[in-house]
Amino acid sequence: MPRIIIKNKGSGLICEKNSLLLDVLRRNGINIQAICGGLGLCGLCRVRVMSGAVSEPTEHEKRILGGLLSEGWRLACQTRVLGDLEIIVPEARKYILEEYRVGRKVKVSPLLKVLEITYCRQKASHTESVMSCISPYIDFKFSHTALSKIPEQLYLHGKACLLYDVESREVLDLEENDRTYGVAVDLGTTTVVAALVDLKSGSVLGVRSTYNKQIPYGNNIISRISYAIKGREYLAEISRAAIDTVEELIDNLAPVDRENIYELIVAGNTVMTALFLGISPHTLGFYPFSPPFTGMLEFKARELGLKLHKEALVKTLPVIGSYIGGDIVGDIVTSGILEDTTALLVDIGTNGEIVLKKGDSIYATSVPAGPAFEGAGLSSGMLATEGAIHRVFRSRDGIEYITIGNVEPKGICGSGYIDLLAELLRAGVITKSGRLQSKDPCVRRRRGVLEYVVCDNVVLTQKDVRKLQLAVATFKVGLHILLSKTKTSPEDLEKIYVAGSFGYHVNPYNAIEIGLLPKVDPSIVEFIGNGSLGGAVMYLISDEIRRECRDVYKKVEVLEAPLEKSFHKLFIESLAFEPVT
Amino acid sequence: MPRIIIKNKGSGLICEKNSLLLDVLRRNGINIQAICGGLGLCGLCRVRVMSGAVSEPTEHEKRILGGLLSEGWRLACQTRVLGDLEIIVPEARKYILEEYRVGRKVKVSPLLKVLEITYCRQKASHTESVMSCISPYIDFKFSHTALSKIPEQLYLHGKACLLYDVESREVLDLEENDRTYGVAVDLGTTTVVAALVDLKSGSVLGVRSTYNKQIPYGNNIISRISYAIKGREYLAEISRAAIDTVEELIDNLAPVDRENIYELIVAGNTVMTALFLGISPHTLGFYPFSPPFTGMLEFKARELGLKLHKEALVKTLPVIGSYIGGDIVGDIVTSGILEDTTALLVDIGTNGEIVLKKGDSIYATSVPAGPAFEGAGLSSGMLATEGAIHRVFRSRDGIEYITIGNVEPKGICGSGYIDLLAELLRAGVITKSGRLQSKDPCVRRRRGVLEYVVCDNVVLTQKDVRKLQLAVATFKVGLHILLSKTKTSPEDLEKIYVAGSFGYHVNPYNAIEIGLLPKVDPSIVEFIGNGSLGGAVMYLISDEIRRECRDVYKKVEVLEAPLEKSFHKLFIESLAFEPVT
Ligand code: FES
Ligand code: FES
Repeated sequence: MPRIIIKNKGSGLICEKNSLLLDVLRRNGINIQAICGGLGLCGLCRVRVMSGAVSEPTEHEKRILGGLLSEGWRLACQTRVLGDLEIIVPEARKYILEEYRVGRKVKVSPLLKVLEITYCRQKASHTESVMSCISPYIDFKFSHTALSKIPEQLYLHGKACLLYDVESREVLDLEENDRTYGVAVDLGTTTVVAALVDLKSGSVLGVRSTYNKQIPYGNNIISRISYAIKGREYLAEISRAAIDTVEELIDNLAPVDRENIYELIVAGNTVMTALFLGISPHTLGFYPFSPPFTGMLEFKARELGLKLHKEALVKTLPVIGSYIGGDIVGDIVTSGILEDTTALLVDIGTNGEIVLKKGDSIYATSVPAGPAFEGAGLSSGMLATEGAIHRVFRSRDGIEYITIGNVEPKGICGSGYIDLLAELLRAGVITKSGRLQSKDPCVRRRRGVLEYVVCDNVVLTQKDVRKLQLAVATFKVGLHILLSKTKTSPEDLEKIYVAGSFGYHVNPYNAIEIGLLPKVDPSIVEFIGNGSLGGAVMYLISDEIRRECRDVYKKVEVLEAPLEKSFHKLFIESLAFEPVT
Repeated sequence: MPRIIIKNKGSGLICEKNSLLLDVLRRNGINIQAICGGLGLCGLCRVRVMSGAVSEPTEHEKRILGGLLSEGWRLACQTRVLGDLEIIVPEARKYILEEYRVGRKVKVSPLLKVLEITYCRQKASHTESVMSCISPYIDFKFSHTALSKIPEQLYLHGKACLLYDVESREVLDLEENDRTYGVAVDLGTTTVVAALVDLKSGSVLGVRSTYNKQIPYGNNIISRISYAIKGREYLAEISRAAIDTVEELIDNLAPVDRENIYELIVAGNTVMTALFLGISPHTLGFYPFSPPFTGMLEFKARELGLKLHKEALVKTLPVIGSYIGGDIVGDIVTSGILEDTTALLVDIGTNGEIVLKKGDSIYATSVPAGPAFEGAGLSSGMLATEGAIHRVFRSRDGIEYITIGNVEPKGICGSGYIDLLAELLRAGVITKSGRLQSKDPCVRRRRGVLEYVVCDNVVLTQKDVRKLQLAVATFKVGLHILLSKTKTSPEDLEKIYVAGSFGYHVNPYNAIEIGLLPKVDPSIVEFIGNGSLGGAVMYLISDEIRRECRDVYKKVEVLEAPLEKSFHKLFIESLAFEPVT
């Protein structure tokens, strides 16, 4: 079997002849991006073959790599191993850590409570069991761990402090120390963020984020579904990748013993939620695209192979439909939109989600905006990591920019593209119909294609503009349908909440300029940060939020934008870069 | 660290200097009897030290081993390892396998049922989940395994066959083959018997019995409690020994994949039940001797570390009180006593249990008869294994006997003692007050003590008679209290059911003669065999029996014989070897 030496890691591995290089690397735990899911489109899986025999370059590779091919660069998803190799795998960039802003002020009433029970030996007899002194609390269930300890504890000490989950009313264990923690997880398709919460005080002790270890299986939900439904082992493998991601985050969060973590709340879209729970997302991949389940699910962590306290519970924020998952529920409760009369909530991601609160009703829709605003598929696109241009201004001297980490620019991330598009529209360098104007001194033509040169190695091509235009248009259609179906005009809106990691960095003027947000007074736009995480955190510590989540699940009415007959017509109309009015 | 060579097994092990030999052997999985729990009283833990340094003999050893000490024999529970050793560990005898008689004829309605669900894609949408087609059965719970498979199965095949437990209404899995088995376990203090049951047909596919691997921790419940309450690791260890016993039985039962075993029902006394579940029996060991719990408990097998189907359930027949456990509930439902007007059920073991059915009431009591009828603590006593005298007759030529396996006699087991006592009472060799008459030619005096010589190496000493007399008296007190408290005379009894492995071999005339059974027409005595096992088997396959078990749990009134003020007076009166009238 061929051997592969990874020169820059000093490691080696073996594989079957003819294996796909991406599969080999992924199976050996090598972190490699593959946003397009191995279709040869995103170019992110590139590796450099220093020596050895591999398959001939495919058409995709020729198109994406061009001259790089001659330097040995290849797309791992297109390359088969024919013999011993020496390769270089570029380091995957670490994410910039999420700033976490605690959302609403809530009264602390944790999901895990303590009940003190006293026991009086006088009442005991041959037939009256020790456990019967808990009978006033007759609706309690007892975990095996709790039941194995309680009678002895009561007998020896005359009392016991029971740790119980207020929803399931299951007694998980005795309180044996005062370290009781919960973990909230925002399980994103690309990034996973976890917060450690003290279940006594309700305070957040730390936040960490990392790549989702499922990325090597494809960076969008469709490619993950395709992988998961190949068979039960595949489902187990991709599910394990999500569990591994969360376990790694927990270990990095704080010097907390996993044994002291009793509750874990996950907010994710419907596919991510299903994959985390090891439930096949099969039905989400094919017509009629039904969710396998809706509502909240609860399991023991150990059932998912997640090592926390032996009886720890995992709960997922309620799934409402195939495209409206627990992440949106988290956004909704974090925003406080339920107290507004008429307000909008948008979460701009690979799937754009839009929620409208109007009177007593909540409407939600989701549109497949694509990964353009996460930097995927664009010539200089990248995630919001070090070196990404994330702010762009136009001064008298032309375009100026700021990169994450203030280092040399490597590419542009979502918020940078919004700024750039808006500034170029204002300057007339891009027309409303999305055409780059060749007369601008920064616009040049290379290999027959117009491109705007931001700096040396960073450009915005005509093709990039088209991709962003499609993403914005799709999003606008969703917005339009939601507003028109509910007879709401942008002026009615009291508030617009913008959620997502994306959200912090966006300039509302620019987002309105390009049509991503409706035409409103920019001062009503509020960035709520990572609403999914906020929702999961507050679920751990607030009765009121738990009630709200259940309400939201029952009340949200899903409008299925992509099925609308008017979609196509609207889409054409929405292609112009201009605000929704 | 000292090394110990076990010469007759050709094996070796190492241990800390100064370790107790019994602990060392037990921890290394060497099967060694220790009925007294390591107190140096039963003499069953004897091993022969061929060479090497050990601690000085204790007083117990001098008393029990006498001249054997000079041959190197030692009690493992009294001997500490001081250096490298060569020892011989006598082979523990295998039990004679239980004959299993199917009890009552019951209509087959297994604990695990199949429900076929159909799914129609037409009804599906973005918001209507696949699982919602199961909503007519809304009270179902779904195991993680079931939920991870059902939506995909329904989507791909339009239907699914769900395996669910009829009591908890938990769907355990999809039916993927037609092999669904259950296991019934009679978890005795000494012997554990398991039956494999086909959950489709309700038929018993095989029965196996073996020693309880807890025996090395002491052969009575008190010594097991003492061990278990030393700390959580000790509890875990002794609990694991019971689980190991059951796993070994299952592996020997039939070539059945453990994955296909979905239900396991355990019938045992209260202490055995608690230990099997890993629940501390602490409160059962000290005043006021309360049971840690009562009723039926249910856990996932995996919670107990028992490897069956991933979602398999373990249920324990209901514990009624500290001394009335699930084993008696099994006896009651197996006997069919609930259909009698006035009838008695006795289970003669280390704890003697007596149940009286009278009209609508069920009374039960339990007496600490001691292990004499299991052969423990008697000069020639042994368990009912090969070489035990289990039948005794008196012919014109004197005493004749039959041994188990028709081999040379090695000792006497319980049923043999009952026969022997009865025959010697009838012949006047023993008086009603329990005195051996020295004038009989078979009675001799050795070291100042009278003994009846059965054969060369098997004797009944005056001391043995006294121990048996105490056991019978204790049992009679229980019987007396139960009958007098309920104003029942032996003539009122329509039936006497005798349960226990012990039961098959007992001659009812002789049991009545010595007072173990009340004075009735011997033809109303019926041996029901292993009623605990029968109850557990029927629980797996019959709705009616499950209902009866719940009824019995609610209805049984426990009479606490040992707490009666009149106990002492009654005990003295009961010492005479004569039937209860
Ligand atoms: S190009 Fe290879 S994974 Fe996208
Ligand atoms: S004498 Fe050693 S265990 Fe009983």
